[in-house]
Amino acid sequence: MAYGLLNGKRGIISGALDENSIAWKVALKAKEEGATFTLTNAPIAMRMGAIKELAEQCNAEIIPADATSVEDIENLFSKSTEILGGKLDFVLHSIGMSPNVRKGKAYTDLNYEWYKQSIDISALSFHKMMQTAYKQDAINEWGSIVALTYMAAQRTFPFYGDMADAKAALESIARSFGYQYGKYRNVRVNTVSQSPTPTKAGGGIGGFDKFFDFADKTAPLGNATANQCADYVITLFSDLTRMVTMQNLFHDGGFSMTGISEEVMSLITKE
Amino acid sequence: MAYGLLNGKRGIISGALDENSIAWKVALKAKEEGATFTLTNAPIAMRMGAIKELAEQCNAEIIPADATSVEDIENLFSKSTEILGGKLDFVLHSIGMSPNVRKGKAYTDLNYEWYKQSIDISALSFHKMMQTAYKQDAINEWGSIVALTYMAAQRTFPFYGDMADAKAALESIARSFGYQYGKYRNVRVNTVSQSPTPTKAGGGIGGFDKFFDFADKTAPLGNATANQCADYVITLFSDLTRMVTMQNLFHDGGFSMTGISEEVMSLITKE
Amino acid sequence: MAYGLLNGKRGIISGALDENSIAWKVALKAKEEGATFTLTNAPIAMRMGAIKELAEQCNAEIIPADATSVEDIENLFSKSTEILGGKLDFVLHSIGMSPNVRKGKAYTDLNYEWYKQSIDISALSFHKMMQTAYKQDAINEWGSIVALTYMAAQRTFPFYGDMADAKAALESIARSFGYQYGKYRNVRVNTVSQSPTPTKAGGGIGGFDKFFDFADKTAPLGNATANQCADYVITLFSDLTRMVTMQNLFHDGGFSMTGISEEVMSLITKE
Amino acid sequence: MAYGLLNGKRGIISGALDENSIAWKVALKAKEEGATFTLTNAPIAMRMGAIKELAEQCNAEIIPADATSVEDIENLFSKSTEILGGKLDFVLHSIGMSPNVRKGKAYTDLNYEWYKQSIDISALSFHKMMQTAYKQDAINEWGSIVALTYMAAQRTFPFYGDMADAKAALESIARSFGYQYGKYRNVRVNTVSQSPTPTKAGGGIGGFDKFFDFADKTAPLGNATANQCADYVITLFSDLTRMVTMQNLFHDGGFSMTGISEEVMSLITKE
Repeated sequence: MAYGLLNGKRGIISGALDENSIAWKVALKAKEEGATFTLTNAPIAMRMGAIKELAEQCNAEIIPADATSVEDIENLFSKSTEILGGKLDFVLHSIGMSPNVRKGKAYTDLNYEWYKQSIDISALSFHKMMQTAYKQDAINEWGSIVALTYMAAQRTFPFYGDMADAKAALESIARSFGYQYGKYRNVRVNTVSQSPTPTKAGGGIGGFDKFFDFADKTAPLGNATANQCADYVITLFSDLTRMVTMQNLFHDGGFSMTGISEEVMSLITKE
Repeated sequence: MAYGLLNGKRGIISGALDENSIAWKVALKAKEEGATFTLTNAPIAMRMGAIKELAEQCNAEIIPADATSVEDIENLFSKSTEILGGKLDFVLHSIGMSPNVRKGKAYTDLNYEWYKQSIDISALSFHKMMQTAYKQDAINEWGSIVALTYMAAQRTFPFYGDMADAKAALESIARSFGYQYGKYRNVRVNTVSQSPTPTKAGGGIGGFDKFFDFADKTAPLGNATANQCADYVITLFSDLTRMVTMQNLFHDGGFSMTGISEEVMSLITKE
Repeated sequence: MAYGLLNGKRGIISGALDENSIAWKVALKAKEEGATFTLTNAPIAMRMGAIKELAEQCNAEIIPADATSVEDIENLFSKSTEILGGKLDFVLHSIGMSPNVRKGKAYTDLNYEWYKQSIDISALSFHKMMQTAYKQDAINEWGSIVALTYMAAQRTFPFYGDMADAKAALESIARSFGYQYGKYRNVRVNTVSQSPTPTKAGGGIGGFDKFFDFADKTAPLGNATANQCADYVITLFSDLTRMVTMQNLFHDGGFSMTGISEEVMSLITKE
Repeated sequence: MAYGLLNGKRGIISGALDENSIAWKVALKAKEEGATFTLTNAPIAMRMGAIKELAEQCNAEIIPADATSVEDIENLFSKSTEILGGKLDFVLHSIGMSPNVRKGKAYTDLNYEWYKQSIDISALSFHKMMQTAYKQDAINEWGSIVALTYMAAQRTFPFYGDMADAKAALESIARSFGYQYGKYRNVRVNTVSQSPTPTKAGGGIGGFDKFFDFADKTAPLGNATANQCADYVITLFSDLTRMVTMQNLFHDGGFSMTGISEEVMSLITKE
C-alpha cells in the first residue's frame, strides 16, 4: 500500500547490498511513496551486490562511494543533487562493518587498527556525510537524516564486539550533528535501533541465530523485519515527523523495554 | 495534505477540550486521513468545551466518560465499537489533571487526597481504558494506543509538581500493558512526550510562559506545536509503525537531547 | 570490616522484617559503622517479624508506623529526633507491597482499589516521609535519603505486576523531592535498584526463583546479595557521596547493562 | 577525615596534571585512605605538570606513558605491579583531549585526523589499559576500574564538540569491557560523569565559565567539586561497591535529573 508520503522528495540511500538489506527495502518503499533518489555503496561491496537490479527497479542511479573518503562523499552529494535536480530531502545511512567482529577477535583481544576502521566505517562515515551535506548546503529545510543502529550501544551483547562502541559513537554523532543541522536548516537527525535482522551484515555475527531467537521470544511483538523497518523509516522521512530529532528510536517489537518475557522464563525452567 | 494513512480505521480520541488541545488536532487529522472515531471527555470538561463543534466537523459522536470510572469506560468502548461498526484500531489518551498543581500546592506541601486524584485521573485512567479494551477484546490485531506525556517523568521541572509522578506512572503503565497487549493481540502501546504546548492544561501551570520560552530556545527546532504533534500521532496510528511499542517517544524539537543551547548560553552571559 | 563511615550520624531505618531483609542488613552495617538510629515498621508487619532481636543487637528503639499514615510518620520523625538527641543524617525507605501481586491478579485484571494501595504503600509513603521530615526540618544539612527500588520501573518483568508502576512513581518522587530537599538543606535523595533478592517481599512474587536464576546468569558478577546492598547503602549515607542526588543507582552485578550473557545464550541453544 | 577504605590496596592513577585535576585529588585521598599506587601521565603533559610534587606527597612513583601506546601501557602495568609488590585493586582513567576542541574547530567543520586522535586519546586508551591489564592478569579479583566522563555523552552541549562522541565511546567501552572483566575476575568497570570542573582540561573549552554557571544554577546542590569527585571515586574503589558495574554514575549535584531550576527560570524572566 502506498500513500504518497514522499511525493516529490529527493534523497540518498546507502547500504543496499542485497534484497535482505534494510536499505534495499527502504529504497523500494521510498520509490513506492513517490521519492526519487540515488543509491550508494562502497565500490568493493557493489561488486558483490545485486544493487544494479535494485537501481533498475527504482529508476535510480548508483554512485559508488567509499564511506570513509570525504572526496567520494563530496562527489556523492554533488552528483546526487545534480542528477535529482535539486537539494535533498532525506538521507539514509546504513553502513557498518567491524574487521574485529568479522575476523572473530574477542573484545579482550582487539586489533586496534581494525578498531579504528570500525569507528571510521561505522560511525565517522555518518559525520562525513552530514558535514559534506552541511558544507554544500545540499539538504532542504526540514530534511530528514536517519542512520540505522543497534541496542548494543546501550547494553552489552558479547557477540557484538567493538561494533557496540562504534554504534555508541554513531548515536552520539546523530545528537551532536542533529543539534547543529537543526539550528542551521531545521534538518532533523535520528537513529533507528532495529531488531536483529538476518541481513548480510547481521549474518556475519557469530551466534546470530541464537540471539535472533532470544530477541524474538523476548519482544512481545517478536522481532521487527527489514520490511517493517523500511516502513518506519519512511515515516521518519515524511513531513509528519518534522519535530522528532536527536532521538534514538527503538524499532524492535518491544524488546528494549522488556526485562524478561514469559516465553524466556519458561525456557529457563526447562533446564 | 492528506495521505489516507488511516483509511478504514476506527478509534477513540479523548481529551479534546478546545481548539488548542492536541487531541482536537489529532481528531481533525485523523478525519482527514480517513478514520472514523468517537470523541470522549469528562462530563464536567465537556460542558465548558467546544467539543460539539469538533464532533460536527469530524462527523463523530461524543460519548461522555469520567476517565476514573470503569463503568463509564466500559460504556465508552462498547458504544464506540457499536457506533463505528467494528473493533477499534487506535485509541488516544490525552487526559491529565492535578488538583495540587491547579491549586498551587507546593510539592513539599502536597494534599494527599489530591495526589491520589492526580494519579487516578492522569495515569490510572490509562490502565482502565486498556484493561476495559482488553476484556472486551475491543481492539483489532495490530491496533495502536497512544498516551500523551511530558518529560517531567524523567527530569524535574519544579512547576510541574505531582504531575511528574503521575506521568512516570503513566509511562510505566504504557510499558507494562504494552507487553501484555502485544502478546495478546499484537496491539502496540506508546507514549508521546511532547514539547510544552499552550493548551488549556499547559496554561494552568504556573511559570508556563517562561518555561515555554526556555524550551523553545533550547530545542534546536524550537517547540513542537499541537498540530505537529497530531501529525506525529497519526504516524503512530498508521500501519507503518507496527513494531514500535512500549516506547516513550520525544516529540520536542530536540529539547530532550540538548544539554544547553547557544541561545540559552547567551542569555546567561547577559546577566 | 568497619570504617567508621557513619560515626556520629543518626537515622531512621524502615522495612526490616527478618534477617533476610535488606533493611535488616543495613541496620547491622550502620551500627558497625558508628550510627545510631531508630527502626520502624508497620504495626502489622512487626507482629510477624523478628525486629525486636534486631533492635537489641543495634541498641535501637522501635517506633511502629503505618507508612500510609501521615500522623504515624510525624510521630516517627519527632520521636526519632528526640530519642537520638538531634536531627537526622539518613533515612532508609524499604517499603513496598502490592495486594494485586500478592493475590495473584493479572496485570490485565487489576483490582483498582488494590492498585491505589500499591501506590500508597510503596510510593506515596516515601513522599510522606520526606514531606514530614521537610516540614519538621528534621534532617541535617547534607543528610542522605535512600529508597530501595527495582528495575521493573524501567523495563517490564511480567510477574512484577503493578509494583512496576509503583516503583516508577517512587523513583519519580525521589527526583522531584530530591530537587526540593537539595535546594532547602542540601539533602540528597536517591534510589538503589537492587538485584532480585530472596527476601520476604521478593519471595512473595510468583516465578521469583526462575527469574532470580536468569538474572544471576545474565549479570556478569551475578546477583548482588542483601549484604552487599547494605554495604552500598552505607556509602550513600556517608559523607563521601554528598553530591550524588536524584539518581537511580543500579546495584545489580551489571544486569541492567547486559543485553544477553553467554550463559543465557547457551541455555537457548540447548532448547 | 580518613577511614582506611583502601587499606592495603594497590592501584594506578592517570591524569594528574596539576592540583586542580580530579586525578590529583583522587591520589591525595587514595593515599589518605591507605592505598599505594603509581602515577602516570603522558610524557608531554608531565613536562608541564607539577606531578613530581604530587608523587612526593603520595610516596608514589611516576611511570610516564603515552595512553595511545600499547607498549607504554604494557610497561605501565608490569612496572606498577612490580613496584607495588602485587596485583592491582584499582585503576583511574582520567585522560581526554580533543585537538578539534582545542583548536576551535566547529563540529560542522571537523578535521578527521584530529577526530581520530580524540577517540584514540580519550576513549580507546581506556580499552588499551583494560586489555593490557586483562592480558597480564594484573588486577585482583574484585578490583575496580573507573573512568571520568561527561554528560555530553547523553545530551548535546555545543561547546563540547567531538569530545561528546569520544565520551560516548568511552562509556560504551566501560560497559563492553565491564561485562568481560566481570566474567573473568569479578572486576568492575564504571564511569563517573562529573559536573563541569575548572581543571586544565575543562578550562580549555570555550564558553566554559558561562556553562559552569548555568550548571551550578541548575543543580540543586550546585556543581560538584574535584575534591568531592575524589571522595566519590574512593567509594567506588572500596570494597563496599563490589556489585556496581557497567554503570555511568552521575556525580553532579542533581544537574542530570533537573529539567530546569527556579534560579534559571528567574534568569529568563529578566530578559
